[in-house]
Amino acid sequence: MKPILGTCYYPEHWPASQWDEDARQMAELGLKVIRIGEFAWSRYEPEPGRFTWAWLDQAIETLAKHGLQVVLCTPTATPPRWMVDRHPDMLARDEQGNERKFGSRRHYCFSHIAYREESVRIARLMAERYAKHPAIVGWQIDNEYSCHDTVRSYSDSACTAFRVWLAAKYHKIDALNTAWGNVFWSMEYDEFAQIELPNLTVTEPCPTHLLDFYRFSSDQVVSYNKLQAEAIRAYTDVPLIHNYMGRTVDFDHYKVGADLEIASWDSYPLGFLVDRSGADSAWQQRFERQGDPDFQAFHHDLYRAVGNGRWWVMEQQPGPVNWAPNNPAPLPGMVRLWTWEAIAHQAEAVCYFRWRQAPFAQEQMHAGLLRPDSQPAAVYPEVAETAREIQQFDDIQPAQADVAIVFDYESCWAWEAQPQGEDFDGFGLAFDLYRSLRRLGVSIDILKPESSLDGYKLVLIPGLLAWPEVLLAQLSSFSGSVLIGPRTGSKTANFQIPAQLPPNISSLDCTVQYVETFPITSPRPLTDGGAVRTWLESVQTTETVLETTVDGQPVLISRGNLRYLAGWPDQEAAQRIFQRLLDDAEIAYSLMPEGVRRRATGSHEFTFNYNATSVEVDGEVMAPAAVRWRALD
Amino acid sequence: MKPILGTCYYPEHWPASQWDEDARQMAELGLKVIRIGEFAWSRYEPEPGRFTWAWLDQAIETLAKHGLQVVLCTPTATPPRWMVDRHPDMLARDEQGNERKFGSRRHYCFSHIAYREESVRIARLMAERYAKHPAIVGWQIDNEYSCHDTVRSYSDSACTAFRVWLAAKYHKIDALNTAWGNVFWSMEYDEFAQIELPNLTVTEPCPTHLLDFYRFSSDQVVSYNKLQAEAIRAYTDVPLIHNYMGRTVDFDHYKVGADLEIASWDSYPLGFLVDRSGADSAWQQRFERQGDPDFQAFHHDLYRAVGNGRWWVMEQQPGPVNWAPNNPAPLPGMVRLWTWEAIAHQAEAVCYFRWRQAPFAQEQMHAGLLRPDSQPAAVYPEVAETAREIQQFDDIQPAQADVAIVFDYESCWAWEAQPQGEDFDGFGLAFDLYRSLRRLGVSIDILKPESSLDGYKLVLIPGLLAWPEVLLAQLSSFSGSVLIGPRTGSKTANFQIPAQLPPNISSLDCTVQYVETFPITSPRPLTDGGAVRTWLESVQTTETVLETTVDGQPVLISRGNLRYLAGWPDQEAAQRIFQRLLDDAEIAYSLMPEGVRRRATGSHEFTFNYNATSVEVDGEVMAPAAVRWRALD
Amino acid sequence: MKPILGTCYYPEHWPASQWDEDARQMAELGLKVIRIGEFAWSRYEPEPGRFTWAWLDQAIETLAKHGLQVVLCTPTATPPRWMVDRHPDMLARDEQGNERKFGSRRHYCFSHIAYREESVRIARLMAERYAKHPAIVGWQIDNEYSCHDTVRSYSDSACTAFRVWLAAKYHKIDALNTAWGNVFWSMEYDEFAQIELPNLTVTEPCPTHLLDFYRFSSDQVVSYNKLQAEAIRAYTDVPLIHNYMGRTVDFDHYKVGADLEIASWDSYPLGFLVDRSGADSAWQQRFERQGDPDFQAFHHDLYRAVGNGRWWVMEQQPGPVNWAPNNPAPLPGMVRLWTWEAIAHQAEAVCYFRWRQAPFAQEQMHAGLLRPDSQPAAVYPEVAETAREIQQFDDIQPAQADVAIVFDYESCWAWEAQPQGEDFDGFGLAFDLYRSLRRLGVSIDILKPESSLDGYKLVLIPGLLAWPEVLLAQLSSFSGSVLIGPRTGSKTANFQIPAQLPPNISSLDCTVQYVETFPITSPRPLTDGGAVRTWLESVQTTETVLETTVDGQPVLISRGNLRYLAGWPDQEAAQRIFQRLLDDAEIAYSLMPEGVRRRATGSHEFTFNYNATSVEVDGEVMAPAAVRWRALD
Ligand SMILES: [Zn+2]
Ligand SMILES: [Zn+2]
Ligand SMILES: [Zn+2]
Repeated sequence: MKPILGTCYYPEHWPASQWDEDARQMAELGLKVIRIGEFAWSRYEPEPGRFTWAWLDQAIETLAKHGLQVVLCTPTATPPRWMVDRHPDMLARDEQGNERKFGSRRHYCFSHIAYREESVRIARLMAERYAKHPAIVGWQIDNEYSCHDTVRSYSDSACTAFRVWLAAKYHKIDALNTAWGNVFWSMEYDEFAQIELPNLTVTEPCPTHLLDFYRFSSDQVVSYNKLQAEAIRAYTDVPLIHNYMGRTVDFDHYKVGADLEIASWDSYPLGFLVDRSGADSAWQQRFERQGDPDFQAFHHDLYRAVGNGRWWVMEQQPGPVNWAPNNPAPLPGMVRLWTWEAIAHQAEAVCYFRWRQAPFAQEQMHAGLLRPDSQPAAVYPEVAETAREIQQFDDIQPAQADVAIVFDYESCWAWEAQPQGEDFDGFGLAFDLYRSLRRLGVSIDILKPESSLDGYKLVLIPGLLAWPEVLLAQLSSFSGSVLIGPRTGSKTANFQIPAQLPPNISSLDCTVQYVETFPITSPRPLTDGGAVRTWLESVQTTETVLETTVDGQPVLISRGNLRYLAGWPDQEAAQRIFQRLLDDAEIAYSLMPEGVRRRATGSHEFTFNYNATSVEVDGEVMAPAAVRWRALD
Repeated sequence: MKPILGTCYYPEHWPASQWDEDARQMAELGLKVIRIGEFAWSRYEPEPGRFTWAWLDQAIETLAKHGLQVVLCTPTATPPRWMVDRHPDMLARDEQGNERKFGSRRHYCFSHIAYREESVRIARLMAERYAKHPAIVGWQIDNEYSCHDTVRSYSDSACTAFRVWLAAKYHKIDALNTAWGNVFWSMEYDEFAQIELPNLTVTEPCPTHLLDFYRFSSDQVVSYNKLQAEAIRAYTDVPLIHNYMGRTVDFDHYKVGADLEIASWDSYPLGFLVDRSGADSAWQQRFERQGDPDFQAFHHDLYRAVGNGRWWVMEQQPGPVNWAPNNPAPLPGMVRLWTWEAIAHQAEAVCYFRWRQAPFAQEQMHAGLLRPDSQPAAVYPEVAETAREIQQFDDIQPAQADVAIVFDYESCWAWEAQPQGEDFDGFGLAFDLYRSLRRLGVSIDILKPESSLDGYKLVLIPGLLAWPEVLLAQLSSFSGSVLIGPRTGSKTANFQIPAQLPPNISSLDCTVQYVETFPITSPRPLTDGGAVRTWLESVQTTETVLETTVDGQPVLISRGNLRYLAGWPDQEAAQRIFQRLLDDAEIAYSLMPEGVRRRATGSHEFTFNYNATSVEVDGEVMAPAAVRWRALD
Repeated sequence: MKPILGTCYYPEHWPASQWDEDARQMAELGLKVIRIGEFAWSRYEPEPGRFTWAWLDQAIETLAKHGLQVVLCTPTATPPRWMVDRHPDMLARDEQGNERKFGSRRHYCFSHIAYREESVRIARLMAERYAKHPAIVGWQIDNEYSCHDTVRSYSDSACTAFRVWLAAKYHKIDALNTAWGNVFWSMEYDEFAQIELPNLTVTEPCPTHLLDFYRFSSDQVVSYNKLQAEAIRAYTDVPLIHNYMGRTVDFDHYKVGADLEIASWDSYPLGFLVDRSGADSAWQQRFERQGDPDFQAFHHDLYRAVGNGRWWVMEQQPGPVNWAPNNPAPLPGMVRLWTWEAIAHQAEAVCYFRWRQAPFAQEQMHAGLLRPDSQPAAVYPEVAETAREIQQFDDIQPAQADVAIVFDYESCWAWEAQPQGEDFDGFGLAFDLYRSLRRLGVSIDILKPESSLDGYKLVLIPGLLAWPEVLLAQLSSFSGSVLIGPRTGSKTANFQIPAQLPPNISSLDCTVQYVETFPITSPRPLTDGGAVRTWLESVQTTETVLETTVDGQPVLISRGNLRYLAGWPDQEAAQRIFQRLLDDAEIAYSLMPEGVRRRATGSHEFTFNYNATSVEVDGEVMAPAAVRWRALD
């Protein structure tokens, strides 16, 4: 596979006279694929039923003329103002019950039936007109579902749809009352129509109420997306794509991905470092202009899973952005490094956001490849160099990693509903273990809970809410090493503690009696060094104990190829535990210098220096932001 | 008096087939009293007017059969869903004006007249049916008034009732205008119907408006409680009880207590340490698994006053809870220690919350004496041991302490309305002085402002809003030592500065010219060591000055048996001041090692080690969590 | 000019029998001017159309009898309760859409047409009755516009008026769409009636939408004020005044000032230190009882500009206030120092707020010159001494400073709409540079962007949104030194990036390619010492580079008399940069000891010691809070 580069382009933002020169320059720079149209509804359909496709026809032609491929987008993330006049109740409501008003983007509730129909209508019209165009190599549906916290709406539309969803799930209200444990505080319902959304309750609502609402909200995204996918698919066989965001876990990306051919995500390493990496301030300062060394990698691996192997970076930060609390510029070389990191994770395409910086509106301080005055931005030569390198590069051979982490969206919702300790977070736990593994230089696959484990030597299953049958079945015949926990199997699917107590796996004699949570500043030291941070389970077991706290509590227990981890290890403890696991599983690894990371494909091994300083790796000095690769045989 | 142990039990959460074994095991463990029913309304009355008492009949019989005593509860903290359908406006509103919706508990406004009637109806029906049952030794009314900030409601019902309350208090609107000082910003009203609740004003409302609203809100709780008390009392003479919460000061517990026979409170030492103790992070870390060494003691003494001598711990934390920011497990021995600390403060009963951990709903991570799988929880043997110890223990003789602190709810509301410095808090001041005294090993009584001072050698009156006539009368003939202030007597009952200025006590030539507040990080050092923190009054006086700031301002002044304290002393200063006072009052004391506490009853002196390490006390080593007692003669 | 002292007096708060003694004592103390009436509407007009002027007649007579001058105020900041009954929709709404209720003050929306009429009505009635009274030397209109965040209202009245304002500005909706860049996210409008206020949008609204709303909101204050000014001016020629607040930048004070003769502001040095100075905690601790050494000075200079040379301190803090997070007392001597600092900045009058501390309502803990019991407050002798000193002092001759800073309200709104980095703030930038200059002992004028630059030797233009034609024209012929930036000229008036990119000034070959923002904890060091903090522009230039970062980026560039500053310098860097500029401009300066400040008028040079300790200045020791002056020849 040969990766390609691209960019995001907004012909509607510029005079038509500029398009041809833009397209020529894109091609000259070595870009191959151009995403267009995701915010242009008011230009497609300036008033209900009146369409102005001519400009789009021309824009696509212009790009095609220069040999550029096009990803065309449905514009449903930005319904025009007249849409809100037609459907005033299409707006979502926030948790406080306030309308989320027109004036930016994503101003719709996924449960609003008429807006769903409008979305299908525009998608179908676009597909009808453009599906056969040879330049169009893919369709993006909507834009960044969930961005700005838009998955969960507390509108009347959502409430009505939630009741329908619950009735379909539970059939009888008594089944719901039992599943939720509503007897607890006399919360029993007499009929589905009494159920309200779980906001503004006096104190916390029932966690199963919350979890069902989160499941419902995710399902609404899935079905909303599917409606558009079906509308387009009727006209074309090119891949359908969505561009996901970093650390947005409030809908099930796997399920959306199942209705699409390619997953993509929008990678803003500096923006996310401050906003979403969860890193402490020393770490943020160290990587201020480079981004977190693991955050992008995690998402690359995640979206490879979401796309069933096919994935892109749809938006790659090319300079300072406008939306994080602070917005520094990437260190010279980092845009190239980020691009190669994506390729090392088997990205098919990396598109820079955006071609030219807009001088107006919300993102006028967001860098592009060109400045607003059409001069090359600072990053331009670096992108040109990267394009040349890729041109000269061999094909990348994909490969399955030896190590896999099971990552589950539903579990993230569950732990959000019931963190039990202020620092517990499902994404955070998975990402932290991922980071520890990556420090050991190993390549990792991310798996959904139902994925096949075939071919893996080591599988981690951290923080999984409840055991799916299919996973238990796989584990029973799996011969690789498995590390389970903490918190895995601690609930039933209805968010109740299972009858035989966590971790609720019959092949292990292990019972979680109770859980302790404590501040990150009060870790519980382990006998062999390091500590458990924030989360520790009190376990009764007759199995072999491999790790204990200094006061003798079991932390890692073992039987055959199974390990159970009863707490959240800090980096020192995680390093040691993983080294033992990797040794046992006969997986090669090597402890990376801090800030240096590695990934192997089937054909190449890549090494990246995320540090702002030079560092010696395997006897050779790597400059700041350096990338090194070697062919594997 | 012989204290007893008990537990909180929810037969409605478990199959009836399990009840007999549960009851047998409770009795075997040494428990004597079982609280039931406070959340079971949807099981008493599944639809309006249809009752299903049979299961409750059977549950009570089962407990009685095993010799267990029962405290039966009215279920009014958890009105069923159908109740909200009948009275949609029964819901409270928060300060932002949002409805506080169904879906958890305490979803009612104390001012809603129809819900008051429904509450009386269910209480009367229960009393009618069960009052004569010999196993029932007490009735709990409702559950944890004020929990989840539920005393103050901003609903229309509350607004209407507030106007009625104001009209009854002031009779004429001019009297209100004068009392509130409404001329200040043209805030004068023409009629009571114009008055609104003091939320959402442009800047802060008049403090007397606030204070009257807080008084009104408290009165609504008192009258609500009284309605149920009267309904039940018509059928029985056994004690009526309410279970108060820690550090909830937004209604007057003394006034609720006046309509009941026993006060009880729900003691969660680890949950409260993080949430409510106000302790700094070093202190929290030191006592992470033991709880604050003074917080429970303060409440024990407070509720002994609220109950006029008769008080229980109705809910005692037995393991990790689910609701604090972090939820560690008690250090082994602490549940026993907490139990004995309660007994040392003359508790009649200590009930562990709860018998068996529920595997469902909001509190599924809240430990019980049994695990969800019915196996003994970690704490079980410790409770068994404690039960045996109590069995073998002598009777406890009650005793009045030598030292008393006057604690007043209304003053807490006043200082909440007008803190003047960000760290001033009425509860915090009283508790801080209490802690300083307790570090000196003395036993303390807490008094309401109207209580008799007879028999006390030293009385503290800190932060009392205004002088009640009855207290002034008592002081005039009191021969013990009195420490007044800071901030005591600084207002009239209408929240105005008194004509002769604070502290407004004629027997002392002392005038507070002005007050300074400053950050906790900027203390004002005292000449003799230590400092005043956050609050310092500038005092003019001709009396003897016992303590001054290093720049010469009087801080402690003295005349006869009266002392006036013009600032909030830090621990070092408080220690010195109290040692002098205790010396003067000829009260024995001894400075405790940090984390060690002591309390004496009429018959025994108890010593407690709250530290996680051993410590030498009076020449003997006390292990972590150790309790030691000796009989007094 | 001879400055005078005064006070704020509330006859309506006290029995009429006390007024004569009050007036006598004021005169005896040396006060000359008394402000009255700004909160007394409910006493002027207790019910609609019924007036009770007799008491006000008597109060004015009483003051006049003792030779006191009067500033009479319109009471429109405190509409009475009946006004809200007449116009229930006159209340503003907050950004969440909640009504801002009656019960304190400033409870009106500037866009409410009927309330505007009511305001004019009462102003006209007062002017009709009192304009000819010889004791009345000025009129204050309303009180502290903007206090409690009252400029921007999200009411229906505001929305309607905003649409009218936009239609008047843009005429055609397409012009608005273009100006705002609404194509960006399909935000295009079809008609003005579709435009809503920019609150509660899903993510941030268009910055031009925000900026226009902020401009509109400011214009509403200007026109509201002008209505009253015209009503009064019809009857009198004495000066009209408004009392502005510290660091309130949400309306254009210059524009309000253009309709009045005198600007005044309310100076609370201790209250503002905590609340508004933006100083770090070490600085706050150092100046806890003295106030920020530059905050008052900045506002003095600002309001001299707003008043076109004529300005007062209308309210001067005389002791602890009640409204800051903590409220310490001024160090002895500071009230005198603050008074002299105002005089050194050419104040015509300084009025202490308030004569007697009120014992009731919201500000009962706010000190006055008298205590509530009518005894002299602690500050009284200090005020008496200050009055004597002023009496004996020479006339002050005004003088234009050598150095000026251009300060622009609109730019503050722009950077609030789009900070780009969490620590960027227009006021903060200007104030920080002002502080650095003042540390060098120079006197400074503040200028509006349209002011004449004639006579200045050095002009700073930091953070100016867009270049006004008039300023560009002046610069083209200006011979003094000019320091521009950072961020100046970075937008068009429509909040778009200008075509030739910032700083968009043709006389300088300098292009800002992009901007970096970073945490205050990650400064970028400069080659010559010090650093750039939080904001750094990447500049391309062929001009002389005077300062660079250690990695070689230009930070200060120079051509002829122009300098461009591409980042926000820390104090060390600013000191060096300013010293060079002052040297070049041949302006005398001397680095002040920390906490010592200086200001010169045309006749005197004043030196102030803001430290709580003695400090040697020019070979002489200044005590804490000392003021020193010398006559200039
Ligand atoms: Zn994006
Ligand atoms: Zn409870
Ligand atoms: Zn004021």
